[in-house]
This record gives sequence, structure tokens and C-alpha cells, in this order.
Amino acid sequence: MDRTPIGSLKEHLNETVTIQGWLQTLRDQKNMQFLIMRDRTGLVQVAHYRPGNPELGDMISTLGSESALTITGKVVENKVVKLGGLEIQLETLTVENAAETPLPFDPFDNDNLPAIDFRMDWRYLDLRREQNLLLFKVQTVLEHAMREYWLENQFIEIHSPKITGSPSESGAELFEVLYFERKAYLAQSPQFYKQMAMAAGFERVFEIGPVFRADPSFTSRHMTEFTGLDMEISWIESHEDVMAFTEKWLQYAYKRVKETYGSEIQAVFGVDIKVPEVPFPRLTMAEAYAILKAQGYKLPPERKGDLDPGGERAIADYVKEKYDSDFLFVIDWPISVRPFYHMRHPDAPELTRSFDLIAGGLEIATGAQREHRYEVLRQQALEKGLGLENIQYYLDFFRYGAPPHGGFGMGLSRVLMVLLGLPNIRESVFLFRGPNRLTP
Amino acid sequence: MDRTPIGSLKEHLNETVTIQGWLQTLRDQKNMQFLIMRDRTGLVQVAHYRPGNPELGDMISTLGSESALTITGKVVENKVVKLGGLEIQLETLTVENAAETPLPFDPFDNDNLPAIDFRMDWRYLDLRREQNLLLFKVQTVLEHAMREYWLENQFIEIHSPKITGSPSESGAELFEVLYFERKAYLAQSPQFYKQMAMAAGFERVFEIGPVFRADPSFTSRHMTEFTGLDMEISWIESHEDVMAFTEKWLQYAYKRVKETYGSEIQAVFGVDIKVPEVPFPRLTMAEAYAILKAQGYKLPPERKGDLDPGGERAIADYVKEKYDSDFLFVIDWPISVRPFYHMRHPDAPELTRSFDLIAGGLEIATGAQREHRYEVLRQQALEKGLGLENIQYYLDFFRYGAPPHGGFGMGLSRVLMVLLGLPNIRESVFLFRGPNRLTP
Repeated sequence: MDRTPIGSLKEHLNETVTIQGWLQTLRDQKNMQFLIMRDRTGLVQVAHYRPGNPELGDMISTLGSESALTITGKVVENKVVKLGGLEIQLETLTVENAAETPLPFDPFDNDNLPAIDFRMDWRYLDLRREQNLLLFKVQTVLEHAMREYWLENQFIEIHSPKITGSPSESGAELFEVLYFERKAYLAQSPQFYKQMAMAAGFERVFEIGPVFRADPSFTSRHMTEFTGLDMEISWIESHEDVMAFTEKWLQYAYKRVKETYGSEIQAVFGVDIKVPEVPFPRLTMAEAYAILKAQGYKLPPERKGDLDPGGERAIADYVKEKYDSDFLFVIDWPISVRPFYHMRHPDAPELTRSFDLIAGGLEIATGAQREHRYEVLRQQALEKGLGLENIQYYLDFFRYGAPPHGGFGMGLSRVLMVLLGLPNIRESVFLFRGPNRLTP
Repeated sequence: MDRTPIGSLKEHLNETVTIQGWLQTLRDQKNMQFLIMRDRTGLVQVAHYRPGNPELGDMISTLGSESALTITGKVVENKVVKLGGLEIQLETLTVENAAETPLPFDPFDNDNLPAIDFRMDWRYLDLRREQNLLLFKVQTVLEHAMREYWLENQFIEIHSPKITGSPSESGAELFEVLYFERKAYLAQSPQFYKQMAMAAGFERVFEIGPVFRADPSFTSRHMTEFTGLDMEISWIESHEDVMAFTEKWLQYAYKRVKETYGSEIQAVFGVDIKVPEVPFPRLTMAEAYAILKAQGYKLPPERKGDLDPGGERAIADYVKEKYDSDFLFVIDWPISVRPFYHMRHPDAPELTRSFDLIAGGLEIATGAQREHRYEVLRQQALEKGLGLENIQYYLDFFRYGAPPHGGFGMGLSRVLMVLLGLPNIRESVFLFRGPNRLTP
């Protein structure tokens, strides 16, 4: 049996074809039954003349919306039909899986969609919406473009372990795992392991994989598990080398998405993908503070040295107006708000060689040059109050010839939020995980 | 500062260049010092005339092997030098990171490598070996080729959650996670979620990501965490459709690896990559048993209905001899050794529409058509003694129009083992995780 995608039916006029998909709508009239069928490639009307086969007609009348069907029939021209000016004259129909009625909600009634939390309970129905199918097609191309650019630039792909034997970084926001008879932890990032790849002489690596944060936040941009886009490169001179690579890489990915799905994104999301120009503007944290101060923006006191989301947006607005850029690097963050492994400026040791990438007012990535000198790194860990015992395996990476290196970690779903203008990260991820959400 | 890769030095004869890499060997003579430098692209000899700069000479004498260095100097022809007939006349040298002495082991002394367990303690030094660098370059191309083929065939890439709220499948081999105040689990496979993508109408999906198994095995082919290659396709007629796709996909991946690294693999691993012909031979389990019986091979009694590793190898040898194929599908496994969601043969309900893919005598993948009919699936779960409460969220995927579908799960590191002829999976993974191994 050869299946014909609905999107290519017009190449099969006057032929008998098999289509397979979902019954989106049934118009059940006295003599005629019209089944609007959907697959990944489009919609088509299937017509059944009831008196010709009353038994089949009765069966069709029982079908619930969203039932999975296999239909054969002849493709004919029908100018009055909106869906491409053609329809299928039904010959046979097989019910692969009858949908129960009623549906928990109608995913195609855009004006009456339930709130996201209810839709997440029935995520697979929610994913049947055109917007969501397109979102994951876009994600696929976005990631593939990122990997293409990495591969063209001699990167090696790694898969680092997600179960680790000791708490890394600060020990906060860690999920504990019962590992046979002992305690283990879920990796908060591939940070230590991509640095290990630098010590191994891999020179350039990337990883796309899950990242776990036991963060009890309920914001529109946090998840306890997300897909991280991570890279690390060796033999850099400063964080500027990392930023210079990052912006070109992102530009390439945006370009490929626009080429592939630009017009569909315009039609479905109403968003015109703008391929960013490089270099992105850079502001030091000191400059960012001065701008916020001049605007009268007050950072919450507990954020000393850091930016809050409102501050990020205010700075982004400033940069958008001044440089017409949706992207912005905020660089040279104070050591107080950066982890111990960020390298410090030799001439301003209270500042790190670090950056955040802000896109559309949202922080999407954090990067830095890393400290690769064993003794300095050890000292910086001690200053941050870390127990060396837990991180000795990591410090050991720097004992036998570690090159200067740096990289970034980025959140895939945050990039999609910004790219497609989505209000909530729950809309841009296959299955959301939060403090209260572990199903489906 | 522009860095010149060592592999392209011959394009810079008589120029002064900067190279950056590791001091693999120092030959420290009275007047001349020779530094063999290594980066990802090759080796080069750097010559220093000691009397010309005694102070630098003394410093060089203190350098431990594997120190990370930046060197500038003039590239000159020198016919007696084995490494490409050229050398660099040292001008300046910067120590980026001095290696302690002695090294825990010499990764370049192939005749005296310590056992794998010790090398895993110092995995980053172990990864500096030529064989390991090539292995991860090969892995990168292999995965990229797989994704290319998937994308050319309209697949969508997904990232399913690794933390799940309830034990799936059997409940055995599950790692428990402390999730805020409750219990959660690490996903044993993306199985349920890629099936959800089928219910969502994605039609074709793949995922490359971590898979967790609390399996207390200490064999040469088991890990508690590994990278799974997973795909699922809709609107199939049987498991044959899945196999037909799988073999072409694997053939493409082998072809791309051979094109890119065939000669290097030959030189480093002594392995001639053979692109497999399709279709791969198929044997039913009944046929496989008959062959083993005829050979007098005795399966261990606790493996009733299953194959043990010895049996897999014996069948693979038989197929290699009879069909000259390194690959083999063993199909139609009894329901007793398959999970509840495998579809059964309508005319032989004690058999499943399933397959294992055996490559080089090793099982590398398991696949099947899945049962997509809610009532049948529910019944099969009950027959296997599963509590429906834990899997109701999964059963719900089949209530509102699930299409017929199937797919496979494959182990990335097992494919590499077979491809490169490695004796132990610990050699084919970035960082091994086993019951006793959680570091580095």
C-alpha cells in the first residue's frame, strides 16, 4: 500500500490513492458526508455519497473527531472546495483507531483554547495544532543548522554523563539520585565535562542534551529539565573569541530557519524572522548599570551585581533603539555573581571574562573564558567557599596541560521562545517539567 | 594572533607562524633542544639552539611532557625530519599550562598502556591518544549522517524528558530521583514519549539522548547510562517497514563514515569499513533456534525464548558464512521476552512483530511495531502484570486517534564498538558509567 501525502494530492488528479490521517471535521448531511482529513502535509475533503453505501454511511456517522483513518478514493477536481480545489471520492475506509468522544478539548478551535496547564495534561492533542507542528519542524532545522555550522568548523560532538558522583558547582539546585547503594546527582550542565574535552585536546566540542535544575521557580522562562546547547573551544585569547564565534553561529542558524520556514512562520506565528547582523552590540556590566541608572530603573537590592529580568528588558530596549539590534552581549560581570571557574580580568580582578547573551529582552546564554591554571582555579574555588574534595576530579583536569578555553551554555527552548515570539516557555518545549509537573 | 594548525604548516614554509598544542616529547641535548608538538591536526618538530638563548633553554629543560604551549617560529624545510620533512625554528615560547611530572601514565606508549580501569581514572589523558580522537571524530560524522538521513526523510527531532513521574515498563532497572518532596524516576528509554509524538501526528521522529538503566551488570557491553539512538514512524503495516528503513539508514551512515574517515580508520584501527548491502538477512526466532539446535548450541535454561550473547554470536557466524552479511535481523520474538506494547501477530498471537538487529555478533538495536489500539494495549499490560495506574498517562495516548506505528532503540556506543572492532564498550564512550563508576 502506497500512502499519498495530502499535500501532494494535486499531482494525482483522477487517480485512486490511499491517504492516512486524522478526521478533523465531519459534516454529516442527509445524502452527503464530508470528512475533512488531516496529515502532516495538509487538509483534504473526502466526500461520501451515503445512499451508495448506507452501511458505511452509518459507520461514518459514529466516528469521533480526531479518529485515525485510512481512506482510499479517487482524487477529483472540485472548484468549489476551498482546500486546494479538489476532493477525494471515498471508496474504502478503515478505522485504525477510533477517537473517544468528546475530546478533552478541541485543539483546532483557536478562539477557545484552554489554559496551558490543561493543555499540558493532553499535550499530544495540543501538539496536533498547526502552530506546534511547525514549532518542532523549526526546532529540527534550527538544531541541524547549529550542528552544520559546528561541523564545518571542526567541532566534535560529545555526550557527557548526566549522572555524576559528586555535587558540582555550588551544590544548590541539584537533584539527588539513588545510585544502587549510594547518592549521586543529576548534572546541572555539561560544564565540567566539556572542559574535560578541552583538557583531552579535542579543541572544539559541542553537546545538545538535557540539563537538570532543582529550581523551585514558577516563572514563564524556567524549567527543571531543559535542552542545553553547549560548546567549548580551546586556544582562545579571551571571551571575545567565544562571542565572535557565537554570533556568527547564531546568525547562520537564523538564516537557515528563515530560508526553510520563513514564510510559514510569518503565516502561522505572524513573526518576520530577522537574520541578525554581526557583531552584536556589547555592553559592559558597568555600562549597563549606568544606562539603567540614567533611566531611573531600580534593580532589586538582592540582585547586587546582577541584572533582573526587568533590567534585561530595559537594556534590550535601549540597544534596540540605539543600534536596532535584537541581540546584545552584556560582558565583564563581577566575580560575585559568576561561578568560580570564570577567568578574571588580569587588570581588574573583581571582574570576570564573561558574558550573557540577551535576545529579545531574554537571557538565552551565559559564557566565559574559563580559568585553566590549576593553582588559580583552586584558589578561586576556595574563595567561593567550595569544598575541594567534591571537585578534585575536576581540578585534576588542569594538572597535565590544559589549554586556554571558553564556551557558552544556551537554552534551546528559550531560543525558540524568542525566535517565534512565544509568551511562555511551556509553549516551546515538547514536554514541560516544573516543580509540580512530572506528567505526562 | 593567528594560530596555524600543525597539519597545514607545509603551506607556510619560510613564514613565521604561531602553533599551539601539547609537548609530546622533549629531546634535550647539549646544544639542541627538539620539542615534538602535537595538536588535533598532527605533530611537528620544533628546534631550539640552546646557546642562542640559554635562559629559554633552561626553562625548556624543566617542561614536563604534555605541557600546553604556544610557540612562534619560522617553518623551514628539513629533509631529515620524519614529521613531514619540515621543522619550526623556535622564536618564542609561552607556557599556557605546565604539566606536572611524572604523568599518571604515558598515553603515547601504546605497548605499555595501563588497564582500562586505570585509564578511565585519567580519561582525559587517555582521550589524547590518536585512536580516541579519531573515535570521537567518527562518532560525530556517524551521528550527523544519521540525522541527515532522518531529515531528508522528513523526521522531526524531539527531546523527551528524562525525569518521569512514575515507573514505566516493568519498574525494574529504574533509578530513583528525589524530586523536591517526592519520588521520580530516570527514563529507561524515550519509548513512551516517542509514541506520544506519534499520537501527536508528528508521523516521524528521532531522538539522540541519554538512557538510564539501573542494571548491576559488569559485562563488556553494558552501561548504566548510554546514548540512545531512537526513532519512531507512523502509518506502517508491520515491523518490516521499520526494518526496511533501519537498514537503509544504517547503510547511509556507514557510507558517510567510510567516505570521511575510511583510510584513517584503516590506518589507526586496522579495520576496513564495509558498507553493508541491503536488505539485511532476516531470521525468525524459530529459525534461529533451529539453527542453534542443529549446531548443538545449548541456550542457558533461564533464557527461555531469548538469545544469550553466545547464541547471538553463533547465529551471526552462521549468517556471515551463509550470506556474507555482518548484519542480521532476528524477528518475531515470543511475547514472553518482549514488553507489553509490542504488537502481536494476528495469526500467531504468541509471537510479536518485533526484531533485534545483530551486528558483528552483538545486539545493537531492538524494534517493533507497537500496539496502538487502546483496549488491546491495556489488556496486554494486564497480562504482563503491570499496574495500570502508573501507565495510565501512557495508555491515554491511544484514546483519541493513535496511528499504527513502530520504531527502534539503538545504542550509539555499541555501534561504534562494532564499527571499529573494539573489545569493550568502555573504550567507545566519552565517560563510562557502571555500578562502581561515577567519576570523573
